[in-house]
Amino acid sequence: MTAVSTIESVGVWLVGARGSIGAMTIASLALMAEREVGTSGLVTARPEFAHADLVSPVGLVVSGHDVSDIPLIDTIRRLWKEGKLEGDLNKIGDRIVEVEARLKNGVRAGEFPNDVAAVAQLRHDLDEFKTQYGLSRLIVINVASTEQHSPEASAIPSYESLRKVAEKNTVLAASSLYAWAAFEGGDAFIDFTPSQGFRLPALLDLAQSKRCLYMGSDGKTGETLVKSILVELFRRRNLQVDSWFGQNILGNRDGATLSDPYVKVSKVKSKDRGLRSALGDAVDSRVGIDYVKSLGEWKIAWDFIRFTGFLGCGMNMQFTWTGYDSVLATPLVIDLIRLTDLAMRRGERGAMPFLAPFFKDPFGIDEFRLVSQDEALLAWLQLGQEACLVAEGHNA
Amino acid sequence: MTAVSTIESVGVWLVGARGSIGAMTIASLALMAEREVGTSGLVTARPEFAHADLVSPVGLVVSGHDVSDIPLIDTIRRLWKEGKLEGDLNKIGDRIVEVEARLKNGVRAGEFPNDVAAVAQLRHDLDEFKTQYGLSRLIVINVASTEQHSPEASAIPSYESLRKVAEKNTVLAASSLYAWAAFEGGDAFIDFTPSQGFRLPALLDLAQSKRCLYMGSDGKTGETLVKSILVELFRRRNLQVDSWFGQNILGNRDGATLSDPYVKVSKVKSKDRGLRSALGDAVDSRVGIDYVKSLGEWKIAWDFIRFTGFLGCGMNMQFTWTGYDSVLATPLVIDLIRLTDLAMRRGERGAMPFLAPFFKDPFGIDEFRLVSQDEALLAWLQLGQEACLVAEGHNA
Amino acid sequence: MTAVSTIESVGVWLVGARGSIGAMTIASLALMAEREVGTSGLVTARPEFAHADLVSPVGLVVSGHDVSDIPLIDTIRRLWKEGKLEGDLNKIGDRIVEVEARLKNGVRAGEFPNDVAAVAQLRHDLDEFKTQYGLSRLIVINVASTEQHSPEASAIPSYESLRKVAEKNTVLAASSLYAWAAFEGGDAFIDFTPSQGFRLPALLDLAQSKRCLYMGSDGKTGETLVKSILVELFRRRNLQVDSWFGQNILGNRDGATLSDPYVKVSKVKSKDRGLRSALGDAVDSRVGIDYVKSLGEWKIAWDFIRFTGFLGCGMNMQFTWTGYDSVLATPLVIDLIRLTDLAMRRGERGAMPFLAPFFKDPFGIDEFRLVSQDEALLAWLQLGQEACLVAEGHNA
Amino acid sequence: MTAVSTIESVGVWLVGARGSIGAMTIASLALMAEREVGTSGLVTARPEFAHADLVSPVGLVVSGHDVSDIPLIDTIRRLWKEGKLEGDLNKIGDRIVEVEARLKNGVRAGEFPNDVAAVAQLRHDLDEFKTQYGLSRLIVINVASTEQHSPEASAIPSYESLRKVAEKNTVLAASSLYAWAAFEGGDAFIDFTPSQGFRLPALLDLAQSKRCLYMGSDGKTGETLVKSILVELFRRRNLQVDSWFGQNILGNRDGATLSDPYVKVSKVKSKDRGLRSALGDAVDSRVGIDYVKSLGEWKIAWDFIRFTGFLGCGMNMQFTWTGYDSVLATPLVIDLIRLTDLAMRRGERGAMPFLAPFFKDPFGIDEFRLVSQDEALLAWLQLGQEACLVAEGHNA
Repeated sequence: MTAVSTIESVGVWLVGARGSIGAMTIASLALMAEREVGTSGLVTARPEFAHADLVSPVGLVVSGHDVSDIPLIDTIRRLWKEGKLEGDLNKIGDRIVEVEARLKNGVRAGEFPNDVAAVAQLRHDLDEFKTQYGLSRLIVINVASTEQHSPEASAIPSYESLRKVAEKNTVLAASSLYAWAAFEGGDAFIDFTPSQGFRLPALLDLAQSKRCLYMGSDGKTGETLVKSILVELFRRRNLQVDSWFGQNILGNRDGATLSDPYVKVSKVKSKDRGLRSALGDAVDSRVGIDYVKSLGEWKIAWDFIRFTGFLGCGMNMQFTWTGYDSVLATPLVIDLIRLTDLAMRRGERGAMPFLAPFFKDPFGIDEFRLVSQDEALLAWLQLGQEACLVAEGHNA
Repeated sequence: MTAVSTIESVGVWLVGARGSIGAMTIASLALMAEREVGTSGLVTARPEFAHADLVSPVGLVVSGHDVSDIPLIDTIRRLWKEGKLEGDLNKIGDRIVEVEARLKNGVRAGEFPNDVAAVAQLRHDLDEFKTQYGLSRLIVINVASTEQHSPEASAIPSYESLRKVAEKNTVLAASSLYAWAAFEGGDAFIDFTPSQGFRLPALLDLAQSKRCLYMGSDGKTGETLVKSILVELFRRRNLQVDSWFGQNILGNRDGATLSDPYVKVSKVKSKDRGLRSALGDAVDSRVGIDYVKSLGEWKIAWDFIRFTGFLGCGMNMQFTWTGYDSVLATPLVIDLIRLTDLAMRRGERGAMPFLAPFFKDPFGIDEFRLVSQDEALLAWLQLGQEACLVAEGHNA
Repeated sequence: MTAVSTIESVGVWLVGARGSIGAMTIASLALMAEREVGTSGLVTARPEFAHADLVSPVGLVVSGHDVSDIPLIDTIRRLWKEGKLEGDLNKIGDRIVEVEARLKNGVRAGEFPNDVAAVAQLRHDLDEFKTQYGLSRLIVINVASTEQHSPEASAIPSYESLRKVAEKNTVLAASSLYAWAAFEGGDAFIDFTPSQGFRLPALLDLAQSKRCLYMGSDGKTGETLVKSILVELFRRRNLQVDSWFGQNILGNRDGATLSDPYVKVSKVKSKDRGLRSALGDAVDSRVGIDYVKSLGEWKIAWDFIRFTGFLGCGMNMQFTWTGYDSVLATPLVIDLIRLTDLAMRRGERGAMPFLAPFFKDPFGIDEFRLVSQDEALLAWLQLGQEACLVAEGHNA
Repeated sequence: MTAVSTIESVGVWLVGARGSIGAMTIASLALMAEREVGTSGLVTARPEFAHADLVSPVGLVVSGHDVSDIPLIDTIRRLWKEGKLEGDLNKIGDRIVEVEARLKNGVRAGEFPNDVAAVAQLRHDLDEFKTQYGLSRLIVINVASTEQHSPEASAIPSYESLRKVAEKNTVLAASSLYAWAAFEGGDAFIDFTPSQGFRLPALLDLAQSKRCLYMGSDGKTGETLVKSILVELFRRRNLQVDSWFGQNILGNRDGATLSDPYVKVSKVKSKDRGLRSALGDAVDSRVGIDYVKSLGEWKIAWDFIRFTGFLGCGMNMQFTWTGYDSVLATPLVIDLIRLTDLAMRRGERGAMPFLAPFFKDPFGIDEFRLVSQDEALLAWLQLGQEACLVAEGHNA
């Protein structure tokens, strides 16, 4: 870890703070402060990031929203037990209590008469947090469960139109309410889920006028991560991939949500696009996701790849990935905060294409391959925004 | 495929011409001339190579050495049947007969009184071939079976010392005799096997004085290929690989040879070095190779990778690779010939570090990762030798 | 193979004769007559069946129905090429032509004004076949594609009611029309598909009054076969299976049909029941089936089994099965014919519970485990019907 | 668990009491007494054993030998942590201390001048234990690490000859010393390891004269267990298995021991014999075992099975087994004790062929298949010894 380079305070606002990733992020930061855990899995702990003057995780001030009432410590104990995780939880009880005291209620369906009222409440919570802790910068990051997209919201062409509609109606998905609230105050917004979030013309319009930073979506933690590496093999060796079938099974809340066919379809889509972009449209690709309760936080993926080599010879490769989902996600959340903070200090604004390696569906980025994405991140670290993969249009 | 850019003739000399890779190379070039097969699996058929003015595979003049008497067509028919390969073999009967007529006997143990006499005979065969077909350039490529290394040969410090010893004794492994013969006439030598070949101080000495091109060793076709891609995942995500266990089973001559424990050990070593270079010395890595006759040319590899993520969480990934060994190797042999020919035309000499992506154990190269190796190859294609990964020392 | 023990002729009527299994059955019987193929995969070629006086496959007279016009030889050549199958197809051209000449058109939707008329036509075809070849016994076996069940048909309580409805309407699934036609003439009916076939109160009523033999459904060729063996491990060792997730991918017509969600659900159900019967209701079990065109006839199944051992320790087993679907099915079709013929000669009637090992969803049988089913078959072979697993009710 | 049916005390003597299996057995019995753990994995907890009047595990009096000094509780804590095992260890501290106080030093190489002296000491320890706790019956069970066989010991034809040799020399492997000591006092001896143990003409001679019970060897806990089930699939379906390749990786002491090539060979042999007995000599079968330290007690096995179906079609199945070795072994140890105790009470003597399902290499038994072995065990439970699989010769 690099030393803290600033006495300014950086705030982190977790949307879905009581969920697996949220709770694990809170506990991990506390354990890091107690020097109870190492840095395996943290991208920004690689030597290449050593001189980048990134904010220390230990100094971050954390809070968040959630609609659940489950005590943080219960979720944390469950996660630590199930994954045989390291770090003495007894040492961080006070820190957990302290964060828990700051948490605010998230927006529940039907709670507010219209979206403007809901956003006002959320914004109030964020402002209070910034004031109370004298925060120089605030990064809002969505780590809540996947939710349905709102087609109506996509159709609203500008922030102005949105305000008009939202003064009387509820049209936005919850994730978009949080994004709106963040942008309203000039804060950064990161979407770690496949939800709609900031991906609306109206909110991009707002972000631009407020000069906000934003990026997403859908943290790349498992099967897609492997895919985004393995495609290189077939490309570099000029091997024709005929079909790539992937099947995920998982037992956490994300899995249960995905058993809803509507949500399932949107998840499947976002994974698919990348593979075709890397291997061409000829590849017959499918991804399945199923809920298997007894797996808990563990996520197993099996992929079967059928390819044709020289002389028309059909061959195959298959892999099984066994990952503990939130353990793979949490360090990426911390990485995203550290890198977004750097971008804020550098005065950047708009989409952050250099964060592409962290997402299954990086906003505005066509490059699916992890190595290229990561090289672009390293280049940005050296040179700043201009070195980056080119985002498509929205990043004015 | 690019158009042929030269009326000069390029010769290819296959050491082990009657083996699986040798015979498949001969048949594939004939089928390509008949437009019977596509270019899947050929690295040099990628768009990035389209403007590189590479020699057309169709124009290559092929011959070689072998100690076996098995008719080419028998091996070819067996390979095509076993792998369900495409291309009408009936159309290439004449071409196969024509190549077969050119083949010469390889060196058998005890046949010559000393190594100098053996090399003289081999060189005679090469010269005759060059004269008869008016070849402008000759590339000798070793695709014979793996053989034991000669520790005595490694200890000989210079070409001068080697000549003295070799005038009266037989000290070199067969692969080194072929390398010596190639260098003696200024020809290029490529080692597609893990044998000793040119990897002797005395032969490197000779190659330098004769300004020869050379590279090796051990074609990267299967499990190591996958490894050299997958390591990126763990490096880029800063995941600590605790152990990486690989097991190969195969049923061809290579597998039978490897059941000899002595040879097995040397094969295992060459694969191991790369993984440690990419992931650090902490990784506990083992590779096993076993012979399972009923698999024939098919090679199955199972790798189990145990890694530790954030919070000390142990996770794993496993893959199974099912490849038809010679189908994966043959296009690489054709690629190596085309790229070596370009280097010869460019007036380069010494080791060819830009060919690293083709080898399990690239001579003088520490970079194990395929993507980096391939990027260096593309850079060389644009800019020439100076753009390359730096070889260690020997490439004066 | 045992010698033919009778000069009586036995007829086989394939419903779906031009499909993969139908065409392969026809070609295989022809190749067996030419002594071109061995007996691997034929259950009745095991030593335990040697003294059972089973009809020789070579003497069977074959015909069938199909709605397709694809020439048998085209399907046969495709199957042999894709699976690298043995046997010289050139030797059986005449035999294939001979069978093809006998084939009749199957029932197409909307072709007949009512079901009675359709059955009359089908029965006419069967009677003509029996007369023309002087057949002593006829076995009708459904090897057509999976089709939707007809809920209305299930509700018809008796044969009498069925006739009344069917004189004016079309209510039955095609598979049931064939079963009806078979029973009408006292012939045996076997359902190798998961279709509705004879599984209607009205048709069971008819079968009983006509003293017919029948059995089904859904040939047990792949993943379910493995399951029906592996459950023994967990039962015998008293290991608690928490979840058993299975995923099948396949590229043949069956796979394409199953991409229809309606059909998919019924297929999934029939596989599920068995696992629960063997491991208890606590097991969380799911089976997925997806169509991956490039696999052709090959069927890949991946199963992930999570179980809890002593001291609450969570462990797992996973397997991948790579099978050529029709090659696994065809010998079972031949087995079923030979065993049904024996039952006919023994004067048995009703359901044939001893055929349970051949089916995913054996009619009236709760025993899911292959070993027990197979032991019951061997006992029947020795002792006749009374030794059998007890069918539930319908086998009066 | 059945109720305790006797007020007699049954003693268990663990050879290798401080090893993984030994320590886990001690802890498990203590946890069972505290009602902290369930019966998953215990064969004798299946309903079929409910009326068999087996001794309750809770009443067993345990002690043992070991050459190690590692405190029981350290090993226990390591095993529980690594495997996320259930049961509150804090509740059994006193019980562990109590057992630990009884443990005796095992025989170390070179400690005694000759084998007779060593056996005398071991016998003394056993007698003292029996007297002190008023034990009615004692079962000695070897759960120590695998050790080399002594070829000299095998050549000694009778107990009489053994005594003569052993009065002056050390010829027996340690496992055989323990077996001798057990038989000397009429106690039962079970070998859960692949060591030589009682498998010597001289010791079988002694066992017969002392009317002792004995059985082994090598607990069937993982890959061989799966094999002994899966072979049924290929046999019952008449599928020709061409090759069966198995690879085990494990990180415990057993794995480290097996990295000694000499020991490795003997382990491999014992696994191989069974597969050939079940599938015929044509199967090309290999088993590899390698040590991968980071796996700890976890044992991963990968098996690749290549088989030929109808029409010469090559297909395959592969599986990966992920088991926690001592968790799979420990309940079998408890089962063996309970069943051996029953045999003692029934007045049986000699080899116990009904215990075949528990061993990779069951003494005197050719039947490799688990289902058959287990059925024989159930038959014995009902009827006694005469119902059993016939042992070959030695069981006079």
